[in-house]
Amino acid sequence: MKSLIVIDLMGTAVFAAEGASTAATARLDVLGILVIGFVTALGGGIIRDLLLGYTPPSSIRDWRYGAVALITGTVVFLFHASTADMNYWLLTSLDAAGLSLFAVAGVEKAMEFKLHPLLAVMMGGITGVGGGTVRDLLLNRVPTVLRSDVYAAAALLGAAITILCLKLKMPPTLASVLGIVSCFVLRMVAVYNHWNLPGASS
Amino acid sequence: MKSLIVIDLMGTAVFAAEGASTAATARLDVLGILVIGFVTALGGGIIRDLLLGYTPPSSIRDWRYGAVALITGTVVFLFHASTADMNYWLLTSLDAAGLSLFAVAGVEKAMEFKLHPLLAVMMGGITGVGGGTVRDLLLNRVPTVLRSDVYAAAALLGAAITILCLKLKMPPTLASVLGIVSCFVLRMVAVYNHWNLPGASS
Amino acid sequence: MKSLIVIDLMGTAVFAAEGASTAATARLDVLGILVIGFVTALGGGIIRDLLLGYTPPSSIRDWRYGAVALITGTVVFLFHASTADMNYWLLTSLDAAGLSLFAVAGVEKAMEFKLHPLLAVMMGGITGVGGGTVRDLLLNRVPTVLRSDVYAAAALLGAAITILCLKLKMPPTLASVLGIVSCFVLRMVAVYNHWNLPGASS
Repeated sequence: MKSLIVIDLMGTAVFAAEGASTAATARLDVLGILVIGFVTALGGGIIRDLLLGYTPPSSIRDWRYGAVALITGTVVFLFHASTADMNYWLLTSLDAAGLSLFAVAGVEKAMEFKLHPLLAVMMGGITGVGGGTVRDLLLNRVPTVLRSDVYAAAALLGAAITILCLKLKMPPTLASVLGIVSCFVLRMVAVYNHWNLPGASS
Repeated sequence: MKSLIVIDLMGTAVFAAEGASTAATARLDVLGILVIGFVTALGGGIIRDLLLGYTPPSSIRDWRYGAVALITGTVVFLFHASTADMNYWLLTSLDAAGLSLFAVAGVEKAMEFKLHPLLAVMMGGITGVGGGTVRDLLLNRVPTVLRSDVYAAAALLGAAITILCLKLKMPPTLASVLGIVSCFVLRMVAVYNHWNLPGASS
Repeated sequence: MKSLIVIDLMGTAVFAAEGASTAATARLDVLGILVIGFVTALGGGIIRDLLLGYTPPSSIRDWRYGAVALITGTVVFLFHASTADMNYWLLTSLDAAGLSLFAVAGVEKAMEFKLHPLLAVMMGGITGVGGGTVRDLLLNRVPTVLRSDVYAAAALLGAAITILCLKLKMPPTLASVLGIVSCFVLRMVAVYNHWNLPGASS
């Protein structure tokens, strides 16, 4: 599955760039930038693999993930001032693409371990948002996925649609594509319309 | 062990309700409420199972735990305003019951893995307070179990008494009951008398 | 390897004392002091073992690590007022020694699991700084290793030199000693000269 690895590494690069950029804005030093880039990109998959008992996690077994994350972090460190002006919609699209891909990859991996579909969907969500959550913990913030707009919800939707399609005996590739597209579209529409999930009545 | 599962799921519901309620008060959205409810209820057991190498953790293997946690979180989301007025002593008792049960369940599981008693007691403590600790980390607070009154200490006492009874060749059920009762009583008496553990002299 | 265990337990005691002392200064109660001492000393190794899939982690398998951490924490609790005046350079040297030892022990363990050298070096770094990171998370601070001076960098250097020496077919003991000395010297020189890693340009 050469093409899958390429897409997966692209997602890793996008998330690493986001994490490193956040760390640079928080005025961390170069090593802090690399570490935050690394955990943002690979933290979600690592948590999923630990929960599944698949150790060492994929991103520790295969050096290419770590290398992509660290090279991306280095680039952000060197050129942070110029990336700060990148187009908002380009960044949002790249992030939504990474989220979609990770969520669907996560649910597929969980299905291999014969998890109950409810829990497999949760694994998809963890893979999508886990890295950003660890980043926010390390930067001493309430994780944005817990407070904010339709983000984890999009990951869960993509994961759920992938499973639904697989249960309906669709070909796996089609199931993945439909899951990825659903997550991506929901996320972009939600950002565009400033959708938020409701809070509890008070 | 049908009855054990029922008690275990009741503990899960109590802790999920507490976590979800805290999240609602912190003004998180519905997904944040469900996530915090889930990790408060199941985080302690998940950490214990990861440390024991029992993966996927019980609460990921068996969909009923996740279902109970999510349904409870949904109920809290829908009726938060009315649960906010629940009786303080009822809540404290339910919480102490959950703590006692989880601590004793944790130490029993650790004994199955042939851990040294000292470490098995620690596993009991982790199972009891781990979920609340992860909740506080996600909500960006110093975990209350680290700062506050006799809480983790009660969990450790219950775990230690269970092990002591087992070493004295008492029947396992009696050992569990004595551990649960000790933890519950110490916790309730400590709350009633406003007991606190001492800090370091300064 | 009797002598190795002795050195390892000394590192554990040093880190436990640091963690417990930080917790006492933060006015946590006695149990909080013990818990923070424990995770500071053993958290790095536990995270490494979880990632390697070596469960239960060494420090949970072998009761001596936990016992050393808890006894050290108790001593700090009882005599905190007097240790607060300990010589700054003595403390810094002890900490640098603990860091060096843990980093090299971590990379050696990772090599046993046939990890790629890049990732093995990372495991060395995680073993060295992981405990302090968990401590800072629990105390609700941005981990100092992410913001501050040459600390994780020294751990990574020591780990890298150990691997390099092993690849050059040097005897394992020599490789360890060279790694430990490099880490220790870089750390001490950096503190003495107030070296810091650069941040991103802004």
